[in-house]
Formats: sequence, C-alpha cells, structure tokens
Amino acid sequence: MAAVHVNGFACKDIKNISSEDFFFSGLDKVGNTSNKQGSAVTAVNVAQIPGLNTMGISMARIDYAPNGINPPHTHPRATEILTVLEGSLFVGFVTSNPNNTLITKNLNQGDVFVFPKGLVHFQFNNGTGNAVALAGLSSQNPGVITIGNTVFGSKPSIADNILAKAFQVNKETVDLMQAQF
Amino acid sequence: MAAVHVNGFACKDIKNISSEDFFFSGLDKVGNTSNKQGSAVTAVNVAQIPGLNTMGISMARIDYAPNGINPPHTHPRATEILTVLEGSLFVGFVTSNPNNTLITKNLNQGDVFVFPKGLVHFQFNNGTGNAVALAGLSSQNPGVITIGNTVFGSKPSIADNILAKAFQVNKETVDLMQAQF
Amino acid sequence: MAAVHVNGFACKDIKNISSEDFFFSGLDKVGNTSNKQGSAVTAVNVAQIPGLNTMGISMARIDYAPNGINPPHTHPRATEILTVLEGSLFVGFVTSNPNNTLITKNLNQGDVFVFPKGLVHFQFNNGTGNAVALAGLSSQNPGVITIGNTVFGSKPSIADNILAKAFQVNKETVDLMQAQF
Amino acid sequence: MAAVHVNGFACKDIKNISSEDFFFSGLDKVGNTSNKQGSAVTAVNVAQIPGLNTMGISMARIDYAPNGINPPHTHPRATEILTVLEGSLFVGFVTSNPNNTLITKNLNQGDVFVFPKGLVHFQFNNGTGNAVALAGLSSQNPGVITIGNTVFGSKPSIADNILAKAFQVNKETVDLMQAQF
Amino acid sequence: MAAVHVNGFACKDIKNISSEDFFFSGLDKVGNTSNKQGSAVTAVNVAQIPGLNTMGISMARIDYAPNGINPPHTHPRATEILTVLEGSLFVGFVTSNPNNTLITKNLNQGDVFVFPKGLVHFQFNNGTGNAVALAGLSSQNPGVITIGNTVFGSKPSIADNILAKAFQVNKETVDLMQAQF
Amino acid sequence: MAAVHVNGFACKDIKNISSEDFFFSGLDKVGNTSNKQGSAVTAVNVAQIPGLNTMGISMARIDYAPNGINPPHTHPRATEILTVLEGSLFVGFVTSNPNNTLITKNLNQGDVFVFPKGLVHFQFNNGTGNAVALAGLSSQNPGVITIGNTVFGSKPSIADNILAKAFQVNKETVDLMQAQF
Repeated sequence: MAAVHVNGFACKDIKNISSEDFFFSGLDKVGNTSNKQGSAVTAVNVAQIPGLNTMGISMARIDYAPNGINPPHTHPRATEILTVLEGSLFVGFVTSNPNNTLITKNLNQGDVFVFPKGLVHFQFNNGTGNAVALAGLSSQNPGVITIGNTVFGSKPSIADNILAKAFQVNKETVDLMQAQF
Repeated sequence: MAAVHVNGFACKDIKNISSEDFFFSGLDKVGNTSNKQGSAVTAVNVAQIPGLNTMGISMARIDYAPNGINPPHTHPRATEILTVLEGSLFVGFVTSNPNNTLITKNLNQGDVFVFPKGLVHFQFNNGTGNAVALAGLSSQNPGVITIGNTVFGSKPSIADNILAKAFQVNKETVDLMQAQF
Repeated sequence: MAAVHVNGFACKDIKNISSEDFFFSGLDKVGNTSNKQGSAVTAVNVAQIPGLNTMGISMARIDYAPNGINPPHTHPRATEILTVLEGSLFVGFVTSNPNNTLITKNLNQGDVFVFPKGLVHFQFNNGTGNAVALAGLSSQNPGVITIGNTVFGSKPSIADNILAKAFQVNKETVDLMQAQF
Repeated sequence: MAAVHVNGFACKDIKNISSEDFFFSGLDKVGNTSNKQGSAVTAVNVAQIPGLNTMGISMARIDYAPNGINPPHTHPRATEILTVLEGSLFVGFVTSNPNNTLITKNLNQGDVFVFPKGLVHFQFNNGTGNAVALAGLSSQNPGVITIGNTVFGSKPSIADNILAKAFQVNKETVDLMQAQF
Repeated sequence: MAAVHVNGFACKDIKNISSEDFFFSGLDKVGNTSNKQGSAVTAVNVAQIPGLNTMGISMARIDYAPNGINPPHTHPRATEILTVLEGSLFVGFVTSNPNNTLITKNLNQGDVFVFPKGLVHFQFNNGTGNAVALAGLSSQNPGVITIGNTVFGSKPSIADNILAKAFQVNKETVDLMQAQF
Repeated sequence: MAAVHVNGFACKDIKNISSEDFFFSGLDKVGNTSNKQGSAVTAVNVAQIPGLNTMGISMARIDYAPNGINPPHTHPRATEILTVLEGSLFVGFVTSNPNNTLITKNLNQGDVFVFPKGLVHFQFNNGTGNAVALAGLSSQNPGVITIGNTVFGSKPSIADNILAKAFQVNKETVDLMQAQF
C-alpha cells in the first residue's frame, strides 16, 4: 500500500504513532570539534524526529573548541534563537543590502540571541575553554547554507573567473580558496 | 509621530536597530520553584526580545523541584521541542478526540521530546534532584493555557453547575477545586 | 497506481470530481442528546466532504437538551463562529495566562459569538427547551480537545499524583473524576 | 495615543476586551428580498465583529424569495461552506480554465455544499416558498465580487467595445446590460 | 515504488534534480493571436517547470494583436505584476463590492502595473501595432477564470433564466451570448 | 490622525486609492553597468509600488555588460523566476548542505530559469553583447544579500581572523578581499 506523504516525508496514521516518533536521544553528547572550523553541529529536525513534520520547529546543539567558529551561513527557511549553555561566544549577523550592517554581541552563559530568517550569521568561541550553545529554529527542516562550502566548495565548482569578479580578487586567490573545500 | 506596529508590537526602522533588540540575558538563572506546582518557567519571547516579532520562534527554560510538575497546559499557537539539561522528567501529551491517547516518555539528560501544536501536555520531575529543561516554541508569542488556572481558576469563575456537569462530579468538589486557584 | 495525497487526504484529479465531493446531507437532523452532557455535535469537515481539503473551513451543528452543555474544550487548529438557531445559550471562553479572564454572553436566537483559536470555551443551554446552534470553524480539520476527556479520561490515564498536584486536590478526588470518563 | 492596527483594523489591548467585541445580533432577521435579484445577504465579518480580526473566519445569512438568485460571484479570499436552513436551492460553481466545468446540486433543508476559494458560484431558489441559507467563509474579510456589478456595473464603466469583444456581442447589447446596473 | 507528491505534483529526491527541472524554453516566441479575442497567453508555471512547486511564483507572456484584448478574468490564487515589452496597453481592474471602482491606466513600454489577487482585470491593445507583456504571478499554480468562458461558456451551461436574472437581460440575449462560447 | 500600517508600510483607505498606487514607469530603461560587476538591477517592489503590499510579488530588470555578473546572492524571502530578454546568460544556483550541488544552465533569449527561495545564485553574461533579463520574485519585499558585500564588505567589518578561518585562507588574503568592498 502506498504511504501518505506530507512535505515529502512519510506521514503515519495517528493510530500507529508512539512516543518514539516524537523522541531523540543524545543532545548531551559533546560534538567532535576536531576539524578545520573547530565546531560541530548536532541537528535535531524532521530527519531525526518524524513527528516534527509540519510542526515548524527544530533544535540544534553546537559545540565550539577554543577559537572555533560556526562559519558564516544562512538558514533559508528559519530564524534561529540561541542560548549559551557553557563558555562564551562572539556572535553576529549582517543585514541585507544596501546597509550590510554587522550586528554583534559578546554572549556569556545564559545569554540569548536571535539570528533573523535568511540572514548571514556566525558564532566564534572567544573564550579559553570549550563553548556549548543550544538553538531553536523556526522550521522542521531549516536547511543550512554555509557560505564557504556553497560559494567556494560547490560540486562542481563555480568558474573561478566568475568568483574572481564577484570578490574582486585574482583567479589565483579564488583557486586557493576553492582548494580548501 | 505615530510608531509603526506589526502584530501589535512596535516595529523599529532598520536604521535604528541594535544588538540589544535581539538579546536577552539570564536564562542560566535557576527559577524559583517554591510554589504549589514545584516548577518555574522563564519565557523568552517577543515580550522580552523585540527582534523576535514575525520570526515565528521563542524559547523557555523550565525548572522543576523534585516531584515538581509543569501542569497540563496547551500553547494555542506553538509546537514545543524540549530537551533535558539536568535531571530526569516523565513527560506526556494527549491526542485529540476521539482517541485521547496518552503518549508518554521518561526523559533523561540530552533527550529531546516534541509536544505538537495545541495539544495538552505536561512534565513531571520523577528524579530525586532538581531538573532543568530548555524548550523551543514555534511562535514569537506562543501563549500558555494552563488547564487548572483556565478551567477552575478563571476570573470570574465558570459556574460550578457547568463544571460539575463537565467533569461529572458534584458541585462541592468543583467548589473545592476552584478554591485552590 | 498510487493516489496523490495532500495533508494526508486523497486528492482527486480535477477531471474526476463531481458534486458529491462537495456535498453532505443531514445537518437538519436533531442530534441525540441522551448522554451525560446533554449535547451532541454533528461535524461536517474534510472527513465528511473530501472537497474541503486545503480549503480552511468546516461546519458543525450542536444540539443541547435543557441544561445540556458542550463542555470546556479547545480546537487546536480553528476559531469558531457560532449562531443560535433555536433556544438560548450561555457561552464563554477564557483568555490565556496570566489573565485567564472569563468572557461570557447570554445568546438568543440569531445571536452570533466568536471563540478565538485555541482558547478553552463552552456552551450551556440555560433555556427551558432544546437549543440548536450552527458553527463555522476556520479549518477543514479543526480537531477537538475536550478538557475532561483529555485530562481525566485519556487512555491510559495520567497518573493521579500528577493530576492531584495539578488541580490541588487529593488523589481520591482525582480517582473519582477519572472514573467518570 | 496612536492605536495599534493589524490588517488595517484597530487592535484592542487584551485588558480592554469584552464580550461585545465577539458578538453580533440579528442573524435570525429575514433579509429584504424585494430587489431585482430576489435575494439578500446579511454578512457577519470583521466589520461587524472586531474580535474576528486575524481569525480567518466569518459568517453570512442569505435569504431568497421564490426564483430569487444570489447571482454569480466570487470571494477572492475565502472558501464558502453553506447549509440550507429552509426551502430548497439549486447551486453551482464553475471550475477554472480550461475546463470550465459546471458542478451543480439541488439542495434541500439540512444539505451542505462547498464553493471552493475564488471560483464563480451562484444559488437559485427553485422552490415555491422562501429559502434561507447559512454560510461559513474562510476569511474574516472574504470580499465579494459580483460578476454583473463588476463587469457591467463598475464605476466608471468598462468601455463597451472591450466588453463587446470579451463577450462576443455587439456594443448595443453591452450598453443594454450596463444600463441595468 | 510510490512517488512522493506535494500539492498534487510529483516531488523529486534532491539527489536526482537537474537544471532541466528549473528550465523552460520559448518565452520569446510570439503567441498566435488569430482568435476572437486577438490575444494569446503563454504560461510558465508548475505544469511547465516542476521545480516551481511550493515556490509561490510563475510567469506568463501575453501577446496582443491591434485591438486585441485579454478579456476580464481573475486569478483565484495570485496577484499579477505586468510590464509592457512592446506596444501600448489600456489596462484595468475593478475593486470588490460595494464600490466596484474601475482603476485604469494607459501603459507604454517599460511601464509596470499590478492586478491585486482575485480581482477582475483586463488588458486592451489600444495601439496600432502588436503589443507584448510579461507578467509575474504570485503562485506556482495561479489559475485563470475568464469571466466570459466561465459564466456564458461553462460545460454544461448555466441555465439561461438564472443568467438572465443575474445580468438583467432577457433569455434571448443570454442564449446569444452562450452561443458564442 | 495616525495612519494605518501593514507590514510596516502605510496602508491607504480603499476609497483613496488610484491607479498611481499600482504603477511604476521606466523598466525599459537600460541600467548603468559601468561598475566593477558589470551589471545593474532595477527593482520594482513595495518601495516603488505601494499597492504591492501584502501581494507577495515583485519584479526586477537586470542589465549585464559583456562578462558582467550579477554576483552570488540570496533573496531571504523569495524565489526568483527569470527570463532572458536579450543576449545570453550562464546561470546557476547551489543547493544547501551537505550536497552543495551547483546546478547551471546556459540561457538564451526566451529561456526561463528558477532560483529557489533562499539559495545562493548568480548570472554571468557569457555573450559578446549586452544582456537583459526580467525577473519575478515571490515577495513584495524580497531582500537581497550579496555574499561579497555581506561577508567581506559589512559595516563594520567581520574580524579577519574569523573570516580567515571560515574560508581557510590567511588574514592577508581576507584583508585584501575586504579592501575591495
């Protein structure tokens, strides 16, 4: 029998639901920050919890090593509200054209900050120890577009002459950047 | 000059926004659970962070004393996704008519659970120490309807003969319950 | 061939629709009010009329015996607009926390009243004869959460120590109430 | 002090609301059908009930003299669900291009019919006595576009050569039709 | 395997998408205006470009012979923004009841005009040569309801006595108009 | 008297609207492409046409000199559908994490392409002459976030050590890039 789908996800008959459909375990686990960016995101969205479908919300834990960053990115379908559980973070977002104003804040434990829908934002661990944040996102499927991966690391690559013109650098610089991703 | 409002909240010109409009401090503070329910909710929504307006998300911290409960309630405009930061919780929600199925789960630190939009749900600290949870809600202004306060504690009271019939008890029992709120 | 579904309901090809897909018969039938509450709801939503899917509206007839009540309930996905066709009703809804203000009105034939989305509301036949109301609801699938059935009559039951604490009564009273549902 | 508005309507502080903001009286009154169309619509929307704002629903009573019609019209922002309280009606709607299929039904007391959002529809009293219908509409401000008034009765008029071409008749026929409105 | 559908359209796995799913060719082709109305619409919506599904936008090219009209019609699910690429147009829309105000404008090359969602509107080539317009519509599936086709050309026909009463003309005139469609 | 606002824009009484509220002139004017990117965008949205408010659509003309680019950018609130009026374009968008697939197409006159909501996209004039495109966007206020301006040209600047880590280059390269904006 063909299953019913909503938003591309399978949709259970309410008679067959159980608490497992609304449950996820492991958000207390420290993410592995041994990578170039020194950060790790543990996402809990409709891919992890089927019962989130159509519910318009998801969650994420972000771990940061000292000097670790969650690099500039956007969520095409969500606003993010983030609180610092441990450590301290320097965070910011940039408003859209033509102002491109950078709005920043130093956050300590218990502080809360909002990154409006679709805007480019980042977090940087400016403390001496690890930092941990917990975020709510206003979509069950928020999406993530990391600027570096998208612009310099797409598969296949965006032609270097286009990027050179876009960022006003020579092609060698673009090639160098593309080689990192 | 008359201010511009959206959704009933004042709406700043983008030229005048600052990081303070997206910021709240104090979610690391332990709530005061010295009350009948043994719990405390610290809400962070559009009333606390103006920049949340139209953003469709908010956050809350809930503290629970041992045996403390966040009593049965609904959010008329939001789904809630909750994670346990400390301690353990027995949580549940009830599906709508005609099934009224109770879906429950014992949650430990790092566990995540979803309470779908508009459904009656509760949390109970079934551990021996304090418990702390952090929740994301899919509205900047989710609203809270605590069943006890609403049904037995409204101002003025709902007539006791109506409640007696609704809950199939005598008026004295209703009067007793209304006296608690 | 697999059928196409939208919102979990089968979705006909427009070439195959007929007037039957937009039709329901029998809303003039008096509901059977021989029950504890003395009321009966005849719902006409997407379960009865397939063509209502995605249309954001449904209808219901409510019959009330003398002293009958439509007990405190919420519609998680709909505002209700109700008019009295016959008899008279005492109606009310309670605003959300922290005010929990009870807003009431005595309605006579031809009167119209609105119960805002997600709020707890009720109707009581305070007349000497039967009463009949007709309601529009702002969803093709509004859902009904009757407080009594949900809180004291869920399957399985919510533990009586939780409810005793929530409603500030002893467990015996809770057990008594649970026994009614 | 400047009032707050939502959707162009004034928005009261919740502390000042009363039951009057959710109330309308008179839907039991028979409409005056002594007009060319032999019908009368009594609308109950956000213009009559301020508390309907943002609620996505409204109501209407329609009276029909024998042979009276509620002429072809659309609601640009609402689906309509209608039930016959008295008498009988022949009703229909036409699907959009390219099919333009007319879907019709004879309705008797207690029958319910749906007119999907934005489609042209009509009702005709094909009985020997008066008929009365009650309708729910999926917007607090559904709007009405009566085809005759709009196309042939606009102020100022649409040029007759345009309408002659649109309806494939001569200008004299258009002029005749425009003179009726 | 059963395909996943959203809004009634098949929904590809993101791993299988290609540029063809977002592409359409031929909007530079002149439409064939050799018809009674002297106009031709080339629509580019979700039926032509699968990748438009859920995206809330579509496009259309309209060609007009001299004196050609795009006759009075509505889009039940879209606002239209139109610009003149070539020639000149006299355009208009009519506001809803009770005002039925006709809002018109003479447009020349490079002019832009908006036809609000659901309102009856038309364009007329009042120049001496051909005219071409390009329009954006705020739905991937806007729908078109041409008043003439819908009211006088539905299949089956709306009874002539109903239309005679609606437009205040005799049945012979209605029959004449129906014969044209 | 305080004006009514919706979405932050003043909202006229319908009695005072005129065709000017729905009109813009000049989309046939060639944009000035004498800039580093070799392109120019002429936007027609709610800032230019007040009547677009709440309508969910806007338009833009883009001019490209030979080798000109509309550099990588996102629209946080809109999908874009674009057609080539003149010349030829190489266009592309990148899907979100983790795939970051680049989807590209060579477009000629009359071709149509879709850039889904929130995704990074660009256009490049790969022809020998000027190119012109016309685009519809699914919001009256789509917003533009040009990646270069936002990431390397914000005011104030994002700290170069953060960007160096994000793009895996040394600070000198970042400083060089920031100097261009």
